[in-house]
Amino acid sequence: MADSKNLPGPLQNIFQLIDQNKTKYISTLGEAVAIRSVSAWPDARDEVVRMVTWTGSKLRELGCKVELQEIGNQTFEDGTVLALPPVIFATLGSDCAKKTLLIYGHLDVQPAKKEDGWDTDPFVLTEVRGQLFGRGSTDDKAPVLGWLHAIECYQALKQDLPVNLKFVLEAMEESGSEGLDDLLRAHEDKFLKGVDLVCISDNYWLGKNKPCLTYGLRGLCYFFLEVEGGIKDLHSGVFGGSVHEPMADLIWLLDQLTGQDGKILVPGIMNDVPEKTPDEQKLYDAIEFSLEDFRSDIGVSQIRFPQSKSKTLMHRWRYPALSIHGIQGAFSDPGAKTVIPRKVIGKFSIRLVPNQTPDQVEKVVQAYIKEKWESRQSPNTMKLKLESGGKPWSANPNHPNYRAASKATEYVYNEVPFMTREGGSIPVTLTLQETTKKNVLLLPMGASDDGAHSQNEKIDIRNYIEGTKVMAAYLYEVGQITESLEEAKE
Amino acid sequence: MADSKNLPGPLQNIFQLIDQNKTKYISTLGEAVAIRSVSAWPDARDEVVRMVTWTGSKLRELGCKVELQEIGNQTFEDGTVLALPPVIFATLGSDCAKKTLLIYGHLDVQPAKKEDGWDTDPFVLTEVRGQLFGRGSTDDKAPVLGWLHAIECYQALKQDLPVNLKFVLEAMEESGSEGLDDLLRAHEDKFLKGVDLVCISDNYWLGKNKPCLTYGLRGLCYFFLEVEGGIKDLHSGVFGGSVHEPMADLIWLLDQLTGQDGKILVPGIMNDVPEKTPDEQKLYDAIEFSLEDFRSDIGVSQIRFPQSKSKTLMHRWRYPALSIHGIQGAFSDPGAKTVIPRKVIGKFSIRLVPNQTPDQVEKVVQAYIKEKWESRQSPNTMKLKLESGGKPWSANPNHPNYRAASKATEYVYNEVPFMTREGGSIPVTLTLQETTKKNVLLLPMGASDDGAHSQNEKIDIRNYIEGTKVMAAYLYEVGQITESLEEAKE
Repeated sequence: MADSKNLPGPLQNIFQLIDQNKTKYISTLGEAVAIRSVSAWPDARDEVVRMVTWTGSKLRELGCKVELQEIGNQTFEDGTVLALPPVIFATLGSDCAKKTLLIYGHLDVQPAKKEDGWDTDPFVLTEVRGQLFGRGSTDDKAPVLGWLHAIECYQALKQDLPVNLKFVLEAMEESGSEGLDDLLRAHEDKFLKGVDLVCISDNYWLGKNKPCLTYGLRGLCYFFLEVEGGIKDLHSGVFGGSVHEPMADLIWLLDQLTGQDGKILVPGIMNDVPEKTPDEQKLYDAIEFSLEDFRSDIGVSQIRFPQSKSKTLMHRWRYPALSIHGIQGAFSDPGAKTVIPRKVIGKFSIRLVPNQTPDQVEKVVQAYIKEKWESRQSPNTMKLKLESGGKPWSANPNHPNYRAASKATEYVYNEVPFMTREGGSIPVTLTLQETTKKNVLLLPMGASDDGAHSQNEKIDIRNYIEGTKVMAAYLYEVGQITESLEEAKE
Repeated sequence: MADSKNLPGPLQNIFQLIDQNKTKYISTLGEAVAIRSVSAWPDARDEVVRMVTWTGSKLRELGCKVELQEIGNQTFEDGTVLALPPVIFATLGSDCAKKTLLIYGHLDVQPAKKEDGWDTDPFVLTEVRGQLFGRGSTDDKAPVLGWLHAIECYQALKQDLPVNLKFVLEAMEESGSEGLDDLLRAHEDKFLKGVDLVCISDNYWLGKNKPCLTYGLRGLCYFFLEVEGGIKDLHSGVFGGSVHEPMADLIWLLDQLTGQDGKILVPGIMNDVPEKTPDEQKLYDAIEFSLEDFRSDIGVSQIRFPQSKSKTLMHRWRYPALSIHGIQGAFSDPGAKTVIPRKVIGKFSIRLVPNQTPDQVEKVVQAYIKEKWESRQSPNTMKLKLESGGKPWSANPNHPNYRAASKATEYVYNEVPFMTREGGSIPVTLTLQETTKKNVLLLPMGASDDGAHSQNEKIDIRNYIEGTKVMAAYLYEVGQITESLEEAKE
């Protein structure tokens, strides 16, 4: 795909080698996907740790100095206490003449079970028509491996690595990055000292074919809303009609959260969200984005704003949104069970946008739920807990970091990437911005239809291989940055 | 416990032998509980079948003629097709001078997982202070074994069995008794021909200490309410705000079903429920029932009608009730997952009372949900399916069948049993009444706090052993019935 006329010499050989290594790279991704590193499953904690040590070995083979940082314990809802998987800190090179780039990635994955509706075993990487299906394929194992492949190519071709590298690779990202924030803040003047710029490859293109760089993310408040009745589940035949059922209370509370139009009903929730400006409207109008592709990829009959590209994008990027994810403790298997569950925990989350903060959002949600609950007059007990909170984030898309990534992308895809924001949350983005005080770039490898967190998650072989080239080229372009990189002022 | 002064001679020896066999009976129940015969779990189907063949062997050892009736296939929600477990038809004796008693029981159990909150392994029968904990202990394995023990005692003591016996033992009761109804109706003039009375031991005392006989049951309509959006689960960060989420629609629909006071909001649902009469009120007022024991056993801070014994009983027995059991397809594990589930199925059921019918209830529920759904104006698709329906049932509590059971109970417990109704549903009760056209008796073995369908299901050793004596004495008393047993006219 690369246009060799403009391609700097060192990258020509590297791109060629990446193409030659395609089969090997797919096989390595297969090894990684086979490790069931689901951070949400207590039973899979050994596998999560195995994924960390497996990656640590690969980094050592590349000559990195690798430290496994222990970050304490995790206490699950049921009281189970498990050690958190360690975080990898790795360093490669310390040449004062070079910039130091910090790369973040994560090694854990979302839960996945065949019976959730996967067409293939989620932990067996399966190639179908140019796409690689498997849990973690795109989120975030291929991007992490992409960096390793890029470094390996420089080394195989005996080309000097254009940058000093530091890696932060965690394995709790899909479970709120528990423990990471404290670790990074404790290392602000230690491991993170001397970093000049930051790159995170853990998001997706806006569409399926056009490369993007991303300069904004929504934050997240994830809530556990618990309603508890008696001391045991009850048979609905024997007790139905004579008790206040926790499920009815929970369903009612959850239904108070959003209106028919999807609007969040919590008073004060929009207080910190600025009105959109005419300039902003123009920015959104300029983005190429097919509502029909968007609709048909997710397979719904109609999206929320079927007539408006800018409304659709704004409601994904610059407005908060509330989703109800599920209920723990109720009957969730196929078939029928005539149970009155004794304790049920509704899981819902709100995506945050500038200038919302988790503290403020938690405050208004707590007040609203408390008021509603009191009006319900139920003898059951209700608890609302903020399970995790992350602020929204945005960066300066005109920074040299973004220019380097833009050039790298052009070498590979022959297109200027779109500058996008994203609706998802990667809380570490903000932490890395705050602790390094440097520009943070999001460099997506996968495409919009990869289905991170869904059944049949995949990455296109094109994105894996070309994305690896973008990474290699980005390292080269960061090496070309001549200006000194001041503190981020976003 | 038995007062030997009034006890007929043949029963004295039998009761003594039952007491002597206590340890053996507990061990046999342990074997039965260890068989994980969960009919709702497709993966456990082999275990369900094993429970059937295990019981078949025991019946053959007692000299029964045993037939395993194959009843076709079951198709699960996900398309899995499995053979239904066979139904046991067993016959013992064909003496024209004796009455023929049909006994029904079931061999399958509710789902149970240690992590649901059991204190012990649900499939290892565990004795703690006179109680036997384990899934199926009280529902319905101890009662089924009770009959077998009673027969064995007659035989060990070389006493002629006072009745001819037929058994119908199924293994799909906890999953809507799929296939049983058709089988029984096909055998109305075959296996069921010649039956004089029917006894089912698959329910519970009203309290913990007072024996009961039961002459009424509520029916059941179990609904699957499905809302489907796109073709895959979505990441709430990427898509939240831009799509109509099926969970929000489902939660809203489920919340339309009942009011804050537990009242069912479906118009027309009460049309077929008669007003209570002054006589009926007196009947309920006469029953001994401690609201405080009821409340503290289930561990809630307050029951629905904290001041009224008769309202509490009536809302368990003679008024319909609606319970929401759970949601399939949403996130239900511990921890956090930021998913927008693509298809979610709400499970709810309505307990039916005379003179409601499943057809009529389905009709009004379908109409109500359809109307509500149209007002929601969601582009998602909604389907409401009646998963299973069973009519309510009541019998004549003055029938000789009830008098025999009452006498048998008095021999063992020295108390006249309460005549109760129950809130639960055992659809086969009505089918057996309709196909045999004879009186059906419910003879509970376990107590109100046994926790059928709950965590920590148990049966008291007292109830298991004394209940076995009641069964033996009931066989004796049925043998004493001299009048001819006309068709049931309930």
